[in-house]
Amino acid sequence: MNIYIALVHHPVTNKRGATVTTSVTNVDIHDLARSARTYGVQAYFIVTPIAEQRSLVGRIASHWGEAGKRINPFRAEAIELVRVAPDLDRVIETIGELEGTADKPLVVATGAAYGSAPDGSGADERDRIITYEALSERLERQSGAALVLFGTGWGLADSVTARADLLLPGIRARAGLSTYNHLSVRSAAAIILDRLVGERV
Amino acid sequence: MNIYIALVHHPVTNKRGATVTTSVTNVDIHDLARSARTYGVQAYFIVTPIAEQRSLVGRIASHWGEAGKRINPFRAEAIELVRVAPDLDRVIETIGELEGTADKPLVVATGAAYGSAPDGSGADERDRIITYEALSERLERQSGAALVLFGTGWGLADSVTARADLLLPGIRARAGLSTYNHLSVRSAAAIILDRLVGERV
Repeated sequence: MNIYIALVHHPVTNKRGATVTTSVTNVDIHDLARSARTYGVQAYFIVTPIAEQRSLVGRIASHWGEAGKRINPFRAEAIELVRVAPDLDRVIETIGELEGTADKPLVVATGAAYGSAPDGSGADERDRIITYEALSERLERQSGAALVLFGTGWGLADSVTARADLLLPGIRARAGLSTYNHLSVRSAAAIILDRLVGERV
Repeated sequence: MNIYIALVHHPVTNKRGATVTTSVTNVDIHDLARSARTYGVQAYFIVTPIAEQRSLVGRIASHWGEAGKRINPFRAEAIELVRVAPDLDRVIETIGELEGTADKPLVVATGAAYGSAPDGSGADERDRIITYEALSERLERQSGAALVLFGTGWGLADSVTARADLLLPGIRARAGLSTYNHLSVRSAAAIILDRLVGERV
């Protein structure tokens, strides 16, 4: 499958569970673009409803994409993958245009808490959990497009999770090493892409 | 084995291959600390010969470690792992003190270009390359300490690589997806820890 990623700035939660809009950050733009390029991602969408923030992304991308090409061609090559969108609908629509199809992409949500719901709750969530190994094989064997969603702040809002076809379990160390799971979204996205399409060496 | 990591700011190379000293960045401190905590790393050393930069790290760590504890306990829990050192010798010495042993840790260097030397060169490098799978098993089964080195800038200088017992191959996507390998050190460190001690799901 062709892989697309999106970094969602709204709707996401804050530490109290409220739905908020986070700010775009320069380091998220660059780090996820470089990870996307490394793993053959087709496009990296930065999703925010705030028009001024989308313009900011455009200015940063054009700075590194053109003026910056001579200074650092590798940054330019990564930043070319960056696109902006006001919401998830527009991301899905754009992927359809790029793929030349009316079929929706397979939407995969990521979150630190997925797959760790206590017994007796989260049945709907459980049914949609897929292992990294199973999704990795599916990405390799099937055609079509897949869209992997990453949440800023304290993670994707439930309204986004509800729209996902599949959920990837939160990232953890092997048993006994640690129970901490508060990676930066930059680190989490890099690890998830590596688990899905990294070289096995 | 007990795992330690170090982010080296000197000696590293710049894009022209010269040996330089890079600046400490706030995002590197936090992101690698959070990755370290996630994967059960014992301590995260920030290595720079510049005393003022080491003081800066100390101020940032104490801000998030004490004053910041109420605001974000997860940041505090990660930042507690941060230590500073002027050079690799001092890192190794400190690990010996922490482990209560005169034995040196197993030193593992990381770099985007390792394992990709053209035929007929880099024989010494080739002999020290270990796969992620082999090192992962070794970390699980053996006792003692391992120190994984990450380079800022364009990577660890040859004088650092020369001191490593083992080298991990550069991170790549599976064959055919991409030949780009210019991840941020934040992303690379996260992926490498996951490959070594991540949960297999």
